[in-house]
Amino acid sequence: MKTYRIAVIPGDGIGPEVIAEGIKVLNRAAELDASFRFEFVTFPWGCEYYAKHGKMMDDDGMEKLRSFDAIYLGAVGYPGVPDHISLWGLLLRIRKEFDQYVNIRPIQLLDGAPCPLKDASKADIDMLVIRENSEGEYAGAGDWLFKGKPEEVVLQTGVFSRKGTERIIRYAYETARRLNKSLTSISKGNALNYSMVFWDQVFEEVGRDYPDVQTYSYLVDAAAMFMIKQPQRFEVVVTSNLFGDILTDLGAAIAGGLGLAAGANVNPDRTYPSMFEPIHGSAPDIAGRGIANPLAAVWSASQLLDFLGQERWGKAVLQAVEQVMVERVALTPDMGGTASTSEVGDRVVTALAASSVAAK
Amino acid sequence: MKTYRIAVIPGDGIGPEVIAEGIKVLNRAAELDASFRFEFVTFPWGCEYYAKHGKMMDDDGMEKLRSFDAIYLGAVGYPGVPDHISLWGLLLRIRKEFDQYVNIRPIQLLDGAPCPLKDASKADIDMLVIRENSEGEYAGAGDWLFKGKPEEVVLQTGVFSRKGTERIIRYAYETARRLNKSLTSISKGNALNYSMVFWDQVFEEVGRDYPDVQTYSYLVDAAAMFMIKQPQRFEVVVTSNLFGDILTDLGAAIAGGLGLAAGANVNPDRTYPSMFEPIHGSAPDIAGRGIANPLAAVWSASQLLDFLGQERWGKAVLQAVEQVMVERVALTPDMGGTASTSEVGDRVVTALAASSVAAK
Ligand SMILES: CC(C)[C@H](C(=O)O)[C@@H](O)C(=O)O
Ligand SMILES: CC(C)[C@H](C(=O)O)[C@@H](O)C(=O)O
Repeated sequence: MKTYRIAVIPGDGIGPEVIAEGIKVLNRAAELDASFRFEFVTFPWGCEYYAKHGKMMDDDGMEKLRSFDAIYLGAVGYPGVPDHISLWGLLLRIRKEFDQYVNIRPIQLLDGAPCPLKDASKADIDMLVIRENSEGEYAGAGDWLFKGKPEEVVLQTGVFSRKGTERIIRYAYETARRLNKSLTSISKGNALNYSMVFWDQVFEEVGRDYPDVQTYSYLVDAAAMFMIKQPQRFEVVVTSNLFGDILTDLGAAIAGGLGLAAGANVNPDRTYPSMFEPIHGSAPDIAGRGIANPLAAVWSASQLLDFLGQERWGKAVLQAVEQVMVERVALTPDMGGTASTSEVGDRVVTALAASSVAAK
Repeated sequence: MKTYRIAVIPGDGIGPEVIAEGIKVLNRAAELDASFRFEFVTFPWGCEYYAKHGKMMDDDGMEKLRSFDAIYLGAVGYPGVPDHISLWGLLLRIRKEFDQYVNIRPIQLLDGAPCPLKDASKADIDMLVIRENSEGEYAGAGDWLFKGKPEEVVLQTGVFSRKGTERIIRYAYETARRLNKSLTSISKGNALNYSMVFWDQVFEEVGRDYPDVQTYSYLVDAAAMFMIKQPQRFEVVVTSNLFGDILTDLGAAIAGGLGLAAGANVNPDRTYPSMFEPIHGSAPDIAGRGIANPLAAVWSASQLLDFLGQERWGKAVLQAVEQVMVERVALTPDMGGTASTSEVGDRVVTALAASSVAAK
């Protein structure tokens, strides 16, 4: 029997609550399949850990994570701990140091999921956003000069390397080709006169190797508008770190809300472990009350299964999520229900056990 | 009788078509009032001019514009002329060199305007976005190193000066205080670890002078989501050049479309002329066919009237636009009508002449 070793970082706020449900679902899939199992090792890192130990993770934390098949993360960040400590010391650190240069975020309207748009149907909202996840606007490079003086000036430098830009764009072309979908690049060359002109150039260059892939190129402002007015324009989307951040929250808004939005931070070379996380934050306002929606974390678990090669179960978990949304028997308050976090998780497990995949 | 001297730059694509209607409306307001008049001087600058003369404007173009009371601009940009020539040589150049550091963009759902959101009413979508317009991500600073080599790297540097950041934020606080509304700052300090940390700090510092103004601070990704899910959160909004660009196109999407979105590029010190423009582009695909929607250009004309101190007429023009939207007698195809650009302009003029302001 195959054993997958998963490092679990429940993190802050609602992180632990939603991750517990994801683990429940993963364990159930393994039980039903019987050809693989999970071994979860939990790391208590996060802002509470920081309060006690003055650091977000162990000194040899990255070392410890390195040998796992994947990382499953809840949420990072809590009021009182500055972002440059919490996020840069844990979430962004792992993304960067483990070279998880692809952030894959499905924007897909499930049956039963609430959509704020009047004229959009399930078929209209079905895209896969591939966000650059290792550099660009998030490089952390900059300077703060003449602090406190009238001539004070602060510089923030986006760093777009040939290697970094080419590999994410190539990954996106490969994905579009595999799925037989169009590829849309989102940039802003008319204003960001170095980085995005370069991005557009690489998009075109790499495209020469993929004459079979239909491409589009939009300015980020126009893309934000089209996400609302004509989401059906988008199939596979590739964009920079910052634009991906903004557009996937916008995507979450049109595809059922953050309670349903999942993301995978992938190192395609498999030199380092990849990391799976709901894209919502730690939501301190509702933490500890057992009302957080675990479906985003469960969807991330589905991505994790796909990544491990258990695509049949990845699909089954996503179908179970959809069934729970359709049934409306157990939903958290953000979805208009009254169920607790764990009741929703239980319902997913039930739906999964009843699925046709499980029957095979 | 007061004469306002307006420099008109119709520009490219649909620019000339929509600007003609704005001028029609401005002239009619002046006629009806009888205490002021307009003198329009048209400059044929743009991409066609570039094709003929190898430059986007005359060598002494900025000099020529300088003495006008305001600039009224259509659209800049056309396929075949690279953006770094067309936009940086005309639109962005004027914004920067005339220190039009405030970009004011009303996101306001008029009666009769189509809204793609299920649950949003007119009262919910009523915000004023104040976008930094002179520096930040649009500073044009960067570098392109090791071109064509594997180690190629492209840098794009956002430049946030104390002066530039403070003045836009102060302008926003003043506006919120004057309108007795809340002020929301939109930034991204958790990832842009220099520029946006600075932005947040200045927002807080300047806020000490405005204890009466209720403030909120959102991350740009969350803000994009809230624009769709809870637009009523926003009243006066202040944000950076790039975020303002993205969020106002998103705003246009929820408030009737780009056919209705206006913007003012203001130099509040009045050292240089301010510039008024629809925020849509040159739309080459429909240029010359007489079907472009002139209402965004007309709304910009309303902003121009406000700026000149003719607020009564500014308001009347906006009401006339709203009436045209409600009547649905003359609307362009993008609004579901069959009228031509000039028929819509005529209808605005009729509505304006019939307005109570005109009666006074
Ligand atoms: C927490 C934050 C740094 C992060 C990001 O901006 O990438 C989050 O918004 C996300 O989208 O995963
Ligand atoms: C044309 C372009 C440079 C411009 C911008 O990005 O500012 C436009 O999108 C706008 O919003 O006025």
